[in-house]
Amino acid sequence: MSADASAFADLPAPPCYAVIFSSQRSGDDEAGYARASARMVELVREQPGFLGAESARGADGFGITVAYFDSEDAIRGWREHAEHAAARELGHRRWYERFQVRVAVVHRAYGGPRASVA
Amino acid sequence: MSADASAFADLPAPPCYAVIFSSQRSGDDEAGYARASARMVELVREQPGFLGAESARGADGFGITVAYFDSEDAIRGWREHAEHAAARELGHRRWYERFQVRVAVVHRAYGGPRASVA
Repeated sequence: MSADASAFADLPAPPCYAVIFSSQRSGDDEAGYARASARMVELVREQPGFLGAESARGADGFGITVAYFDSEDAIRGWREHAEHAAARELGHRRWYERFQVRVAVVHRAYGGPRASVA
Repeated sequence: MSADASAFADLPAPPCYAVIFSSQRSGDDEAGYARASARMVELVREQPGFLGAESARGADGFGITVAYFDSEDAIRGWREHAEHAAARELGHRRWYERFQVRVAVVHRAYGGPRASVA
């Protein structure tokens, strides 16, 4: 394990919107899932108002992705993106045993590298 | 991999508060870190106003934990808990290469098991 700065989203100062997506992978169709995941990462970056995202999934298949946007309009735009909607549909039917989405407004943030924050 | 319903926080209807904690493990002191993590999970459950939490960490050491609370007071209470503060201090100095905290208000939520949501 080593520091991977790129795993962290580099966000502007709050406020912003967070879409917290929790999911349990079904274990089905690993290749299709991996392809779609990579494509969604690529697509969301092109979405107007997208600020950044962070993602982690453990060996048990439970994962959390948090995507940050500058407005509800940006979230709606991403939600209505045709290719994203098609992937989501497959996710709900095949790739995830269960998922949960929570939409939130971030109003404060802090952090940093090791030992820089007490 | 299989569905693990217990990985999901069973939350009341929004609104609630979310503390989104992202971290990159340093790789140092795995045993001490694992002990402290387990103890924090135990302690936060006793915190008044705690609603639930979800957590995932990948093989690269990058992890996201989202803890949900019913108020800013509950977040403050947890933040000021002496044993949590001591663990946090060790986290900042030793266990994490880098971390980021974002505090947010959840205003909508949806999800479910496979194929139940289109």
